[in-house]
Amino acid sequence: MKIIQIVGYKNSGKTTLASHLIETFTTKGIHVASLKHHGHGGEPVGISNTDSEQHRTSGSFVSGVTGEHILQLANQGRWELSQILPFYQRLGAEVLVVEGFKNENYPKIVLLKNKNDQHLLKSLTNILAVMTWFPMDHPSLPTFLKGEEKKLCHWISETIFQNK
Amino acid sequence: MKIIQIVGYKNSGKTTLASHLIETFTTKGIHVASLKHHGHGGEPVGISNTDSEQHRTSGSFVSGVTGEHILQLANQGRWELSQILPFYQRLGAEVLVVEGFKNENYPKIVLLKNKNDQHLLKSLTNILAVMTWFPMDHPSLPTFLKGEEKKLCHWISETIFQNK
Repeated sequence: MKIIQIVGYKNSGKTTLASHLIETFTTKGIHVASLKHHGHGGEPVGISNTDSEQHRTSGSFVSGVTGEHILQLANQGRWELSQILPFYQRLGAEVLVVEGFKNENYPKIVLLKNKNDQHLLKSLTNILAVMTWFPMDHPSLPTFLKGEEKKLCHWISETIFQNK
Repeated sequence: MKIIQIVGYKNSGKTTLASHLIETFTTKGIHVASLKHHGHGGEPVGISNTDSEQHRTSGSFVSGVTGEHILQLANQGRWELSQILPFYQRLGAEVLVVEGFKNENYPKIVLLKNKNDQHLLKSLTNILAVMTWFPMDHPSLPTFLKGEEKKLCHWISETIFQNK
Protein backbone atom coordinates (compact mmCIF):
# COMPACT_ATOMS: atom_id res chain seq x y z
CA MET A 1 0.00 0.00 0.00
CA LYS A 2 1.44 3.35 -1.02
CA ILE A 3 0.97 6.20 1.41
CA ILE A 4 0.95 9.90 0.51
CA GLN A 5 0.68 12.53 3.17
CA ILE A 6 -0.69 16.02 2.66
CA VAL A 7 0.46 18.34 5.39
CA GLY A 8 0.35 22.03 6.19
CA TYR A 9 -1.24 24.40 8.62
CA LYS A 10 -4.98 24.87 9.03
CA ASN A 11 -6.81 26.26 5.98
CA SER A 12 -3.82 25.76 3.71
CA GLY A 13 -5.91 23.64 1.33
CA LYS A 14 -5.21 20.09 2.52
CA THR A 15 -8.71 18.70 2.00
CA THR A 16 -9.04 20.31 -1.43
CA LEU A 17 -5.76 18.78 -2.56
CA ALA A 18 -6.63 15.43 -0.97
CA SER A 19 -9.88 15.36 -2.92
CA HIS A 20 -8.09 16.12 -6.17
CA LEU A 21 -5.56 13.41 -5.47
CA ILE A 22 -8.22 10.84 -4.59
CA GLU A 23 -10.06 11.69 -7.78
CA THR A 24 -6.91 11.40 -9.86
CA PHE A 25 -6.17 7.91 -8.57
CA THR A 26 -9.79 6.80 -8.75
CA THR A 27 -9.97 7.85 -12.39
CA LYS A 28 -6.99 5.60 -13.07
CA GLY A 29 -8.84 2.67 -11.50
CA ILE A 30 -6.67 2.62 -8.40
CA HIS A 31 -8.28 1.52 -5.14
CA VAL A 32 -7.74 4.60 -3.00
CA ALA A 33 -8.67 5.26 0.62
CA SER A 34 -8.11 8.25 2.86
CA LEU A 35 -7.52 9.25 6.44
CA LYS A 36 -7.75 12.69 7.97
CA HIS A 37 -6.25 13.77 11.24
CA HIS A 38 -8.72 15.99 12.98
CA GLY A 39 -6.08 18.07 14.68
CA HIS A 40 -5.87 18.89 18.32
CA GLY A 41 -8.52 20.88 20.08
CA GLY A 42 -10.64 21.13 16.96
CA GLU A 43 -14.30 20.33 16.85
CA PRO A 44 -14.71 16.92 18.41
CA VAL A 45 -14.95 13.86 16.26
CA GLY A 46 -17.58 12.44 18.47
CA ILE A 47 -20.87 10.89 18.41
CA SER A 48 -23.81 9.64 20.31
CA ASN A 49 -21.22 7.87 22.34
CA THR A 50 -23.21 6.85 25.37
CA ASP A 51 -23.15 3.12 24.91
CA SER A 52 -19.60 2.76 23.77
CA GLU A 53 -18.56 5.00 26.68
CA GLN A 54 -20.31 2.55 28.99
CA HIS A 55 -18.33 -0.29 27.45
CA ARG A 56 -15.15 1.69 27.82
CA THR A 57 -15.83 2.47 31.46
CA SER A 58 -16.37 -1.23 32.07
CA GLY A 59 -12.85 -1.92 30.82
CA SER A 60 -13.17 -2.49 27.09
CA PHE A 61 -9.82 -1.41 25.64
CA VAL A 62 -11.37 -0.66 22.26
CA SER A 63 -15.10 -0.10 22.02
CA GLY A 64 -16.72 0.18 18.63
CA VAL A 65 -20.08 1.23 17.29
CA THR A 66 -21.24 0.55 13.79
CA GLY A 67 -24.35 1.56 11.91
CA GLU A 68 -24.87 1.65 8.19
CA HIS A 69 -21.63 2.79 6.53
CA ILE A 70 -19.96 4.17 9.66
CA LEU A 71 -17.62 2.37 12.04
CA GLN A 72 -16.40 4.28 15.07
CA LEU A 73 -13.69 2.85 17.29
CA ALA A 74 -12.90 4.42 20.65
CA ASN A 75 -9.46 3.63 22.01
CA GLN A 76 -8.28 4.05 25.58
CA GLY A 77 -5.64 6.51 24.42
CA ARG A 78 -4.88 8.40 21.26
CA TRP A 79 -4.93 6.46 17.98
CA GLU A 80 -1.48 6.13 16.46
CA LEU A 81 -1.08 6.06 12.68
CA SER A 82 0.77 2.77 13.05
CA GLN A 83 -2.33 1.20 14.60
CA ILE A 84 -4.59 2.46 11.83
CA LEU A 85 -2.55 1.63 8.73
CA PRO A 86 -3.01 -2.15 9.01
CA PHE A 87 -6.80 -1.65 8.86
CA TYR A 88 -6.49 -0.01 5.45
CA GLN A 89 -4.05 -2.65 4.28
CA ARG A 90 -6.48 -5.32 5.32
CA LEU A 91 -9.25 -3.58 3.35
CA GLY A 92 -7.12 -3.75 0.23
CA ALA A 93 -6.24 -0.09 -0.30
CA GLU A 94 -3.63 0.42 -3.01
CA VAL A 95 -3.08 4.05 -2.11
CA LEU A 96 -3.83 5.80 1.16
CA VAL A 97 -4.05 9.58 1.13
CA VAL A 98 -3.34 10.87 4.63
CA GLU A 99 -4.20 14.43 5.66
CA GLY A 100 -2.06 15.55 8.55
CA PHE A 101 0.22 13.57 10.87
CA LYS A 102 2.97 15.86 9.63
CA ASN A 103 5.67 14.40 11.84
CA GLU A 104 5.32 10.96 10.29
CA ASN A 105 7.93 9.91 7.75
CA TYR A 106 5.83 8.95 4.69
CA PRO A 107 6.24 10.69 1.31
CA LYS A 108 4.46 13.99 1.62
CA ILE A 109 3.26 17.14 -0.09
CA VAL A 110 3.68 20.27 1.99
CA LEU A 111 1.23 23.15 1.64
CA LEU A 112 2.53 26.62 2.45
CA LYS A 113 -0.04 29.40 2.76
CA ASN A 114 2.29 32.02 4.21
CA LYS A 115 5.99 32.69 3.85
CA ASN A 116 6.22 32.23 7.59
CA ASP A 117 5.34 28.56 7.10
CA GLN A 118 8.53 27.84 5.14
CA HIS A 119 10.25 26.50 8.24
CA LEU A 120 8.17 23.35 7.65
CA LEU A 121 10.45 22.51 4.74
CA LYS A 122 13.32 22.22 7.18
CA SER A 123 11.56 20.39 9.98
CA LEU A 124 9.59 17.80 7.98
CA THR A 125 10.97 14.66 6.38
CA ASN A 126 10.37 12.83 3.11
CA ILE A 127 8.96 15.79 1.17
CA LEU A 128 7.99 14.96 -2.42
CA ALA A 129 6.68 18.35 -3.52
CA VAL A 130 5.52 21.73 -2.23
CA MET A 131 2.40 23.72 -3.05
CA THR A 132 2.53 27.40 -2.16
CA TRP A 133 0.02 30.26 -2.05
CA PHE A 134 2.83 32.65 -3.08
CA PRO A 135 5.54 32.43 -5.75
CA MET A 136 8.46 30.45 -4.44
CA ASP A 137 11.48 28.67 -5.88
CA HIS A 138 13.26 25.85 -4.15
CA PRO A 139 16.70 24.54 -5.04
CA SER A 140 15.75 20.86 -4.87
CA LEU A 141 12.00 20.36 -4.42
CA PRO A 142 9.35 20.57 -7.17
CA THR A 143 7.08 23.50 -6.37
CA PHE A 144 3.51 24.14 -7.54
CA LEU A 145 1.33 27.19 -7.08
CA LYS A 146 -2.05 27.00 -5.36
CA GLY A 147 -4.52 26.45 -8.18
CA GLU A 148 -2.25 23.95 -9.93
CA GLU A 149 -3.79 21.00 -8.06
CA LYS A 150 -4.42 19.01 -11.24
CA LYS A 151 -0.86 19.47 -12.45
CA LEU A 152 0.49 18.46 -9.05
CA CYS A 153 -1.74 15.39 -8.88
CA HIS A 154 -0.66 14.31 -12.33
CA TRP A 155 2.96 14.71 -11.31
CA ILE A 156 2.43 12.76 -8.07
CA SER A 157 0.66 9.98 -9.87
CA GLU A 158 3.46 9.71 -12.45
CA THR A 159 6.05 9.73 -9.71
CA ILE A 160 4.38 7.08 -7.60
CA PHE A 161 3.28 4.75 -10.37
CA GLN A 162 6.15 5.16 -12.79
CA ASN A 163 5.13 2.11 -14.74
CA LYS A 164 1.38 2.71 -15.04
CA MET B 1 -9.84 -14.18 19.66
CA LYS B 2 -12.99 -15.44 21.33
CA ILE B 3 -16.23 -13.77 20.30
CA ILE B 4 -19.38 -13.59 22.39
CA GLN B 5 -22.53 -12.05 21.02
CA ILE B 6 -25.28 -10.50 23.09
CA VAL B 7 -28.49 -10.30 21.14
CA GLY B 8 -32.12 -9.44 21.75
CA TYR B 9 -34.62 -6.80 20.87
CA LYS B 10 -34.28 -3.14 21.75
CA ASN B 11 -34.26 -2.33 25.47
CA SER B 12 -33.86 -5.96 26.45
CA GLY B 13 -30.71 -5.13 28.44
CA LYS B 14 -27.94 -5.83 25.94
CA THR B 15 -25.66 -2.94 26.92
CA THR B 16 -26.09 -3.62 30.64
CA LEU B 17 -25.14 -7.26 30.16
CA ALA B 18 -22.28 -6.35 27.82
CA SER B 19 -20.88 -4.01 30.47
CA HIS B 20 -21.07 -6.72 33.13
CA LEU B 21 -19.36 -9.17 30.81
CA ILE B 22 -16.60 -6.73 29.89
CA GLU B 23 -16.03 -6.03 33.57
CA THR B 24 -15.92 -9.72 34.42
CA PHE B 25 -13.23 -10.43 31.83
CA THR B 26 -11.29 -7.27 32.64
CA THR B 27 -11.17 -8.24 36.31
CA LYS B 28 -9.60 -11.54 35.28
CA GLY B 29 -6.89 -9.67 33.38
CA ILE B 30 -8.26 -10.60 29.98
CA HIS B 31 -7.79 -8.09 27.15
CA VAL B 32 -11.39 -7.44 26.15
CA ALA B 33 -12.82 -5.22 23.44
CA SER B 34 -16.37 -4.58 22.34
CA LEU B 35 -18.46 -3.74 19.32
CA LYS B 36 -22.05 -2.55 19.22
CA HIS B 37 -24.35 -2.66 16.24
CA HIS B 38 -26.32 0.54 16.18
CA GLY B 39 -29.34 -1.06 14.60
CA HIS B 40 -31.20 0.11 11.57
CA GLY B 41 -32.97 3.41 11.45
CA GLY B 42 -31.81 4.32 14.93
CA GLU B 43 -30.22 7.59 15.80
CA PRO B 44 -27.46 8.10 13.31
CA VAL B 45 -23.91 7.18 14.18
CA GLY B 46 -22.65 10.23 12.45
CA ILE B 47 -20.44 13.04 12.93
CA SER B 48 -19.03 16.26 11.73
CA ASN B 49 -18.51 14.37 8.55
CA THR B 50 -17.95 17.15 6.09
CA ASP B 51 -14.35 16.44 5.19
CA SER B 52 -14.55 12.70 5.05
CA GLU B 53 -17.71 13.06 2.95
CA GLN B 54 -15.69 15.16 0.54
CA HIS B 55 -13.07 12.41 0.36
CA ARG B 56 -15.79 9.85 -0.20
CA THR B 57 -17.39 11.86 -2.96
CA SER B 58 -14.01 12.10 -4.66
CA GLY B 59 -13.85 8.31 -4.79
CA SER B 60 -12.18 7.22 -1.57
CA PHE B 61 -13.57 3.74 -0.87
CA VAL B 62 -12.93 4.09 2.85
CA SER B 63 -12.47 7.54 4.33
CA GLY B 64 -11.39 7.90 7.91
CA VAL B 65 -11.17 10.68 10.45
CA THR B 66 -9.26 10.43 13.67
CA GLY B 67 -8.90 12.80 16.57
CA GLU B 68 -7.80 11.98 20.08
CA HIS B 69 -9.14 8.54 21.05
CA ILE B 70 -11.73 8.27 18.25
CA LEU B 71 -11.30 6.71 14.82
CA GLN B 72 -14.23 6.88 12.44
CA LEU B 73 -14.20 4.96 9.18
CA ALA B 74 -16.81 5.61 6.50
CA ASN B 75 -17.29 2.79 4.03
CA GLN B 76 -19.00 3.00 0.66
CA GLY B 77 -21.56 0.46 1.79
CA ARG B 78 -22.59 -1.11 5.05
CA TRP B 79 -19.84 -2.46 7.30
CA GLU B 80 -19.90 -6.24 7.57
CA LEU B 81 -18.84 -7.94 10.79
CA SER B 82 -16.33 -9.96 8.77
CA GLN B 83 -14.59 -6.74 7.74
CA ILE B 84 -14.42 -5.45 11.29
CA LEU B 85 -13.24 -8.54 13.18
CA PRO B 86 -9.70 -8.49 11.73
CA PHE B 87 -9.23 -4.98 13.14
CA TYR B 88 -9.84 -6.24 16.66
CA GLN B 89 -7.64 -9.26 16.09
CA ARG B 90 -4.88 -6.99 14.91
CA LEU B 91 -5.26 -4.89 18.07
CA GLY B 92 -4.72 -7.97 20.19
CA ALA B 93 -8.17 -8.50 21.69
CA GLU B 94 -8.49 -11.80 23.53
CA VAL B 95 -12.25 -11.53 23.84
CA LEU B 96 -14.62 -9.45 21.75
CA VAL B 97 -18.08 -8.76 23.18
CA VAL B 98 -20.44 -8.03 20.30
CA GLU B 99 -23.82 -6.41 20.87
CA GLY B 100 -26.22 -7.24 18.08
CA PHE B 101 -25.60 -8.81 14.66
CA LYS B 102 -28.01 -11.49 15.78
CA ASN B 103 -27.94 -13.42 12.52
CA GLU B 104 -24.22 -14.08 12.81
CA ASN B 105 -23.15 -17.52 13.96
CA TYR B 106 -20.87 -16.78 16.94
CA PRO B 107 -21.62 -18.11 20.45
CA LYS B 108 -24.35 -15.92 21.84
CA ILE B 109 -26.47 -14.98 24.80
CA VAL B 110 -30.08 -14.23 23.92
CA LEU B 111 -32.06 -11.72 25.97
CA LEU B 112 -35.82 -12.17 26.08
CA LYS B 113 -37.85 -9.32 27.51
CA ASN B 114 -41.27 -10.63 26.47
CA LYS B 115 -42.65 -14.11 25.97
CA ASN B 116 -43.37 -13.07 22.40
CA ASP B 117 -39.62 -12.91 21.81
CA GLN B 118 -39.14 -16.64 22.40
CA HIS B 119 -39.21 -17.34 18.67
CA LEU B 120 -35.63 -16.02 18.67
CA LEU B 121 -34.56 -19.25 20.33
CA LYS B 122 -35.67 -21.11 17.23
CA SER B 123 -34.36 -18.74 14.60
CA LEU B 124 -30.92 -17.94 16.02
CA THR B 125 -27.89 -20.20 15.98
CA ASN B 126 -25.09 -21.01 18.41
CA ILE B 127 -26.94 -20.01 21.59
CA LEU B 128 -24.92 -20.47 24.78
CA ALA B 129 -27.44 -19.19 27.31
CA VAL B 130 -30.65 -17.22 27.68
CA MET B 131 -31.51 -14.36 30.00
CA THR B 132 -35.22 -13.68 30.46
CA TRP B 133 -37.28 -10.96 32.09
CA PHE B 134 -39.89 -13.61 33.04
CA PRO B 135 -39.56 -17.06 34.57
CA MET B 136 -38.80 -19.60 31.86
CA ASP B 137 -37.47 -23.11 31.68
CA HIS B 138 -35.79 -24.53 28.64
CA PRO B 139 -35.13 -28.22 27.99
CA SER B 140 -31.55 -27.74 26.82
CA LEU B 141 -30.32 -24.16 27.31
CA PRO B 142 -29.07 -22.66 30.59
CA THR B 143 -31.48 -19.88 31.56
CA PHE B 144 -30.89 -16.90 33.83
CA LEU B 145 -33.34 -14.31 35.13
CA LYS B 146 -32.84 -10.61 34.49
CA GLY B 147 -30.91 -9.37 37.51
CA GLU B 148 -28.65 -12.40 37.55
CA GLU B 149 -26.07 -10.73 35.28
CA LYS B 150 -23.18 -11.53 37.60
CA LYS B 151 -24.11 -15.17 37.82
CA LEU B 152 -24.47 -15.38 34.05
CA CYS B 153 -21.14 -13.65 33.46
CA HIS B 154 -19.41 -16.00 35.86
CA TRP B 155 -20.92 -18.95 34.05
CA ILE B 156 -19.93 -17.60 30.63
CA SER B 157 -16.42 -16.93 31.77
CA GLU B 158 -16.09 -20.47 33.18
CA THR B 159 -17.51 -21.93 30.01
CA ILE B 160 -15.28 -19.99 27.68
CA PHE B 161 -12.06 -20.23 29.65
CA GLN B 162 -12.43 -23.68 31.13
CA ASN B 163 -8.82 -23.81 32.06
CA LYS B 164 -8.36 -20.36 33.55
